[in-house]
Amino acid sequence: MSAYDDLMAYQRQTEALGQVAGRLGWDQETVMPSGAASQRAEEMAALEGVLHARRTDARVGDWLAAAVAPDAVAAAQLRQIGRMYRRTVKVPARLAEELAGLTSLAQGVWAGARAAEDVAGFLPTLERVVGLKREEAAALAEGGDLYDALVDDYEPGMTGAGIAAMFAAMRPRLVALRAAVLGAKAPAALEGVFAGEAQLALTRELADAFGYDWTRGRLDKAVHPFSSGSGHDVRITTRVSESDPFNCFYSTIHEVGHAAYEQGIDPAYALTPIGQGASMGVHESQSRSYENQLGRSRGFTGWLFGRMQAHFGDIGIADAEGFYRAVNRVHSGFIRTEADEVQYNLHVMMRFDLERALIRGEVQVADLEAAWNDRFKADFGVAVDKPSNGMLQDVHWSCGLFGYFPTYTLGNVYAGCLNQAMRKALPDLDGQMAKGDVSAATGWLRDNLQRHGSLMTPRETVAKACGFDPNEAPLLDYLEAKFGDIYGL
Amino acid sequence: MSAYDDLMAYQRQTEALGQVAGRLGWDQETVMPSGAASQRAEEMAALEGVLHARRTDARVGDWLAAAVAPDAVAAAQLRQIGRMYRRTVKVPARLAEELAGLTSLAQGVWAGARAAEDVAGFLPTLERVVGLKREEAAALAEGGDLYDALVDDYEPGMTGAGIAAMFAAMRPRLVALRAAVLGAKAPAALEGVFAGEAQLALTRELADAFGYDWTRGRLDKAVHPFSSGSGHDVRITTRVSESDPFNCFYSTIHEVGHAAYEQGIDPAYALTPIGQGASMGVHESQSRSYENQLGRSRGFTGWLFGRMQAHFGDIGIADAEGFYRAVNRVHSGFIRTEADEVQYNLHVMMRFDLERALIRGEVQVADLEAAWNDRFKADFGVAVDKPSNGMLQDVHWSCGLFGYFPTYTLGNVYAGCLNQAMRKALPDLDGQMAKGDVSAATGWLRDNLQRHGSLMTPRETVAKACGFDPNEAPLLDYLEAKFGDIYGL
Repeated sequence: MSAYDDLMAYQRQTEALGQVAGRLGWDQETVMPSGAASQRAEEMAALEGVLHARRTDARVGDWLAAAVAPDAVAAAQLRQIGRMYRRTVKVPARLAEELAGLTSLAQGVWAGARAAEDVAGFLPTLERVVGLKREEAAALAEGGDLYDALVDDYEPGMTGAGIAAMFAAMRPRLVALRAAVLGAKAPAALEGVFAGEAQLALTRELADAFGYDWTRGRLDKAVHPFSSGSGHDVRITTRVSESDPFNCFYSTIHEVGHAAYEQGIDPAYALTPIGQGASMGVHESQSRSYENQLGRSRGFTGWLFGRMQAHFGDIGIADAEGFYRAVNRVHSGFIRTEADEVQYNLHVMMRFDLERALIRGEVQVADLEAAWNDRFKADFGVAVDKPSNGMLQDVHWSCGLFGYFPTYTLGNVYAGCLNQAMRKALPDLDGQMAKGDVSAATGWLRDNLQRHGSLMTPRETVAKACGFDPNEAPLLDYLEAKFGDIYGL
Repeated sequence: MSAYDDLMAYQRQTEALGQVAGRLGWDQETVMPSGAASQRAEEMAALEGVLHARRTDARVGDWLAAAVAPDAVAAAQLRQIGRMYRRTVKVPARLAEELAGLTSLAQGVWAGARAAEDVAGFLPTLERVVGLKREEAAALAEGGDLYDALVDDYEPGMTGAGIAAMFAAMRPRLVALRAAVLGAKAPAALEGVFAGEAQLALTRELADAFGYDWTRGRLDKAVHPFSSGSGHDVRITTRVSESDPFNCFYSTIHEVGHAAYEQGIDPAYALTPIGQGASMGVHESQSRSYENQLGRSRGFTGWLFGRMQAHFGDIGIADAEGFYRAVNRVHSGFIRTEADEVQYNLHVMMRFDLERALIRGEVQVADLEAAWNDRFKADFGVAVDKPSNGMLQDVHWSCGLFGYFPTYTLGNVYAGCLNQAMRKALPDLDGQMAKGDVSAATGWLRDNLQRHGSLMTPRETVAKACGFDPNEAPLLDYLEAKFGDIYGL
């Protein structure tokens, strides 16, 4: 066996154990008994310790030094392993285990605090998470910017300054569009009560329509919808609100986008380092394409209108055009995951600034609620009414996912680019989607992007699919055209 | 830190990883997508490899040699760790991983073969499982009896010859009781169709009545009911047959018995080597006590009769005495898990003889179906009509669980002893159970047996609770008295 073969055999077992950790996370969020939380934290910490020991094993360094890549795929495998190795050897095992145990517990604390509107009950835990993440970032950054070190986990090659520049370029057009839309007459909203069981039945049809492979996945309920797993076991979750069926439907389509990406990767890459999405930003480009550019299109909503009538009878909206407008209705609200396409990125920009300041030590955890509420009032013109509508709304920080939020908007930017290219390649897409057939679009994304996994860098992956270097203009053009049409701007 | 402290800190992580493996097993049998089987086999094999490496780590041997137990609890911990260490160092890592991967896959093959009544489709896989188990047994036995080496995994200190002697002592009285019962007039059976949802609702009441702690567990459906996990996450499964609600109810009570044992262990022992049941036989003594000596008692069935009427209306049985007889009706059938108390142990004895012969190389896998069918005809007087009623009925062999079956009857023997002691200590037990209150019995079992975990050896554990050395006479006395009464013998 060559050094490359030895390394890959070893790495395959590490990847398999990584999938086990993902499965435990799924279990914790969907089916775990409440009293199991502290024991689970110990289990996760032990498994994280094993993974850390494997990833920092000196043999990996030796193999990396000796390995010769026989081809481009092998070169990509070595790039991914080397990246992970260099990252993990910098973080002490003690810190990695402590973080795994703490964030496992912290999610339970967050869920309890959110339910009880109890910021004070969450702050000591968040304080510890931020402290450990700053410690981790310092170990990774080696004197560089702490936040950059964390962003690089989710979006290799991206920096806080790069994100800040992109957001600054986007912001004026988004603010102007928001103001124009909110100043115009809003279309009628969907109203009424929609039975949870029927929502779940229809949401399964939506997953079918978007090509979700049920033999390699399943759908469950969770507080915060997510997808998890790679290869042959990629699960999704959703949530049901009887007054807001779009929440269930579009959460599901979003998670199907993530899952379809993982399911669409070349099966030959399963349980190898390139057998997963290229980055969180590229991942979000898939979930947001599925959810917005496809799922909220005039064509697809035309089909969904008929399916809603089939499940719920008269839904109080007269025609498909009215339904399209209701789906895309811009509405001021507190919750990022429920935000419309116009305002969503403004939510993300706010979280980015706050978490970057937290990690850089420019804002303290004790001051976070005030900072959040002040910024929200400034950006959205409304005062936060309760913590579950404010800084307790997202699970991310309790999980230690600092640096993750900006990848949502980066994903939207990529989705804008992919949509431009895809529409050019598939001129009849709207006609197909009006019949509930999204397969040309999901097939185009699979063939041009998803199947490559992490073979290329994130930007290369998107650029290869689009045929041009990704930038924010296509997304802004798309938003202005779509909402200019709906709102008669 | 002393050698003992170092060893226990290390062992605690191993125990936590063992719980993770158990959780993966639960996932596989309840919620895993069908297409994930082969990837899961790799994941299980990787985790089994980690566990094997930890259990055979030379440091464990060094710590064991140097450790001094400060008290009796610590001495028991060292006994358990030493036992596991000596066992695992004998089995090559390659073989342990191969077995984990194969048995994970084999369960899927078995389930498919059982559904298709396809023995030939299962035999090549079973052949490989038996081959690897014989290889494992040879490594463990070091020249001794292969089957003894496997039995010792489930029932430390027990041997094939010891089991054979006990079974030989029991057999004549069981055969005579069976003949007398089948020669007498049978009571009326429960008949009809019972909605699955209502069965599941009532089965949750049964779990409540037997003290199952839902904050540390959950109930799901599975092909073959089981319980899994220790400490703060002990899950159970059941199955529903609309024509046979007793299957659901008594499977559930049985699994609650297993789970209550794990939940009843002193919490200070959680994630330590003595923090789990003392052996499979002692485990079965709990599940069978809950199911039979308590759940099928005249007192408890009186309460259950009322609950069935509440859920299902008129169930076609006039009074509690008729219901007690229907629950305990002796009926010839093919399936061990559905067998009555009189015939159950005869099913086990047959499996014991067959699997012992398989492992000792006295019967070949190719001849197993014929051997099964011949023996079944001889013991039960009926020809097996299809493989799912014959050698494909149980999951055990596909999982590599050779040596496990006899612990079911050993558990019945222990349950007979415990029942004798418990009835003496709780003279009003039947009166309490007639009101649905089983807490005196479950409390007695928890205080006298369950809380000790593996602090003592299996036999010591039962002897301490009973106050006498366990033997088969109390079980046989109990069966003859109970069924003599019901059948007027």
